[in-house]
Amino acid sequence: MRPGIITLTTDFGLHGPYVAAVKGVLLERAPDVTIVDVSHTIAPQNVLEGGFVLANIVDAFPAGTVHLAVVDPGVGTDRRLIAVASAGHWFVLPDNGLITGVIRCRPPDEVRAITSPTIRRALVSSTFHGRDLLAPAAAHLAMGQSPEELGPKLERFITLRNFEPTREDRSAVGEVIFKDTFGNLITNIHTDHLGLTPAECWEIEIAGERIVGIVGTYGERSPGQLIALTGSSGWLEVAVVNGDAARLLSAGAGTTVRIRMTN
Amino acid sequence: MRPGIITLTTDFGLHGPYVAAVKGVLLERAPDVTIVDVSHTIAPQNVLEGGFVLANIVDAFPAGTVHLAVVDPGVGTDRRLIAVASAGHWFVLPDNGLITGVIRCRPPDEVRAITSPTIRRALVSSTFHGRDLLAPAAAHLAMGQSPEELGPKLERFITLRNFEPTREDRSAVGEVIFKDTFGNLITNIHTDHLGLTPAECWEIEIAGERIVGIVGTYGERSPGQLIALTGSSGWLEVAVVNGDAARLLSAGAGTTVRIRMTN
Amino acid sequence: MRPGIITLTTDFGLHGPYVAAVKGVLLERAPDVTIVDVSHTIAPQNVLEGGFVLANIVDAFPAGTVHLAVVDPGVGTDRRLIAVASAGHWFVLPDNGLITGVIRCRPPDEVRAITSPTIRRALVSSTFHGRDLLAPAAAHLAMGQSPEELGPKLERFITLRNFEPTREDRSAVGEVIFKDTFGNLITNIHTDHLGLTPAECWEIEIAGERIVGIVGTYGERSPGQLIALTGSSGWLEVAVVNGDAARLLSAGAGTTVRIRMTN
Repeated sequence: MRPGIITLTTDFGLHGPYVAAVKGVLLERAPDVTIVDVSHTIAPQNVLEGGFVLANIVDAFPAGTVHLAVVDPGVGTDRRLIAVASAGHWFVLPDNGLITGVIRCRPPDEVRAITSPTIRRALVSSTFHGRDLLAPAAAHLAMGQSPEELGPKLERFITLRNFEPTREDRSAVGEVIFKDTFGNLITNIHTDHLGLTPAECWEIEIAGERIVGIVGTYGERSPGQLIALTGSSGWLEVAVVNGDAARLLSAGAGTTVRIRMTN
Repeated sequence: MRPGIITLTTDFGLHGPYVAAVKGVLLERAPDVTIVDVSHTIAPQNVLEGGFVLANIVDAFPAGTVHLAVVDPGVGTDRRLIAVASAGHWFVLPDNGLITGVIRCRPPDEVRAITSPTIRRALVSSTFHGRDLLAPAAAHLAMGQSPEELGPKLERFITLRNFEPTREDRSAVGEVIFKDTFGNLITNIHTDHLGLTPAECWEIEIAGERIVGIVGTYGERSPGQLIALTGSSGWLEVAVVNGDAARLLSAGAGTTVRIRMTN
Repeated sequence: MRPGIITLTTDFGLHGPYVAAVKGVLLERAPDVTIVDVSHTIAPQNVLEGGFVLANIVDAFPAGTVHLAVVDPGVGTDRRLIAVASAGHWFVLPDNGLITGVIRCRPPDEVRAITSPTIRRALVSSTFHGRDLLAPAAAHLAMGQSPEELGPKLERFITLRNFEPTREDRSAVGEVIFKDTFGNLITNIHTDHLGLTPAECWEIEIAGERIVGIVGTYGERSPGQLIALTGSSGWLEVAVVNGDAARLLSAGAGTTVRIRMTN
């Protein structure tokens, strides 16, 4: 069996010892695994942002990948830890809605609570379950071992509502869900919300500005121009050609975005 | 032999070519090694912070791991480079106190000066010994080659005093040694300084605020509350539940922390 | 064949899903490859900075390494994507000058346009060619497959002028090309521009300050002193011993640097 891949998405930051501690545990239990950092700079305890980033990398990875995600404001309370199988991947994370973006178009095949008293570190701290409980579970799955051993099957788990825009007949109201390094504003409105209506028939409203039509790529407009386009993962994006839309509009995560058909 | 692990802890920053240059040298000399980044954002030349972060990841890694650490304000002077064996791990670093946190509870088994004229790059720069001298030494050890070849045994090496709080009979005065991404303030006061006195009998003073008792986890108090708890590596930590203690207290590395028994 | 190395230099930032998406594609197509991050915090769309960082890591990597670099303001326009063989390494990047630093002292052996309709992802987005076109090309080369399959040979490609300082008889005018984490200012003036004139015969002028002589290392001057030295890759560097030259001089990328012989 080819050694597997484990991806990491956390709000641990890159500065301290937390990420490396998780990797040490993974490598001790799954020595040949390939670890890929997705992001460790999710805004602290921002489950919505973590879920969005996680959802957008799944399709780039081969089936069999294990995705470990830790944005866990409830650590030390009785929130559950879960393992979710979906589209041939495993997701190991707290049951706090972090899985929402992933399962949006990939219904889960199996959900298990992580409760095994043996698949964990000998000493479990009360503040670092990513290292002590989730990493051992992810290593277990990456080694191809049985999911049943993690814990009982679950029928229900938590999902977040704000991944979905409010849709009306000829319009939708969503929000910016992620601001990237370039200042592009990625919204929770997906191409599939737009149906078959041609791109030029949509009008986008954000932060008091109006954008007419959805372009295919930055090169279709001049530098400095405010545009709406379908991003590389299918989400509606507001950008400035060779510029920074977030700064221009003083907008960011949470900013309201309206889209409506113009005829 | 299973390919080994080399961890990296530096103040090089993530922006420039320095970290990758070190990795290139490691991979050329130890092709199958697994490299794990611990942190590259140690505050420039802050040996105390680097030593703290390094100390906190050791236990998560399997025996045989080689830890390369470079926070080296003395590069180009006659400060020594050393390799330290402790608790089954190797540490390769400048002899400037960076090892202090590690050996605090893991007495060194062997210390060697790195002086070999053959275990180094052909051209040694005067400003980048991490790449030219330390990386070849770390690769040498990760390949399971003889430590004797690095250089002579040493009896003495430098340790830093401020890792240890000042202890009195029923109290201790320490300092914040690390501020993490969440704004948690990690101190140099360790659980083992507290002995067997129950957690509720301690009182912590920091930045003019008083905290009564040490809780087990964030979930024991309400969001927004200032708490003291034992962190995931045993250090006393000051935090705000779902908040940012560093911002609330305008505190950070160096802030004084007093702890005393209340009865 | 030993599994190869692919390095990554981008302006994607560390925050979002972009870097991990590229890695997923690389690992799917070249499962045993070792991926090394060079930098993902190149200033957005700053081809000059990206080219400088890339150029400075090449010599640390073994022959056969594939360097994937994506700083691509022209994505979605008709700018070309190229693969360049030089000094035993492959470089996969947009044809926008990003290769300039590399080929400065390493003439290219072979340049190919990346046009193959089969070496790409099934769905090619219009905004993320790093993931959809360049990553598959890099994986192809890292697997030791034929460069001819990528596309036709090219005779010309784009280079940037500002990598080279303006030289006169006994002087040169260059600029700061990179500010590192320590606040050191790395210029585009290389040791080989200085010829055989002894280091003490040069005088450097930057931001209204004059520095006499080029020292060998930080340790030759006292803390706080402004110095000029030859950096670890041969570029003239302006630094403050144990301090931050960028802050002291309010200087950064683009700041003019004059150097002249004093006798």
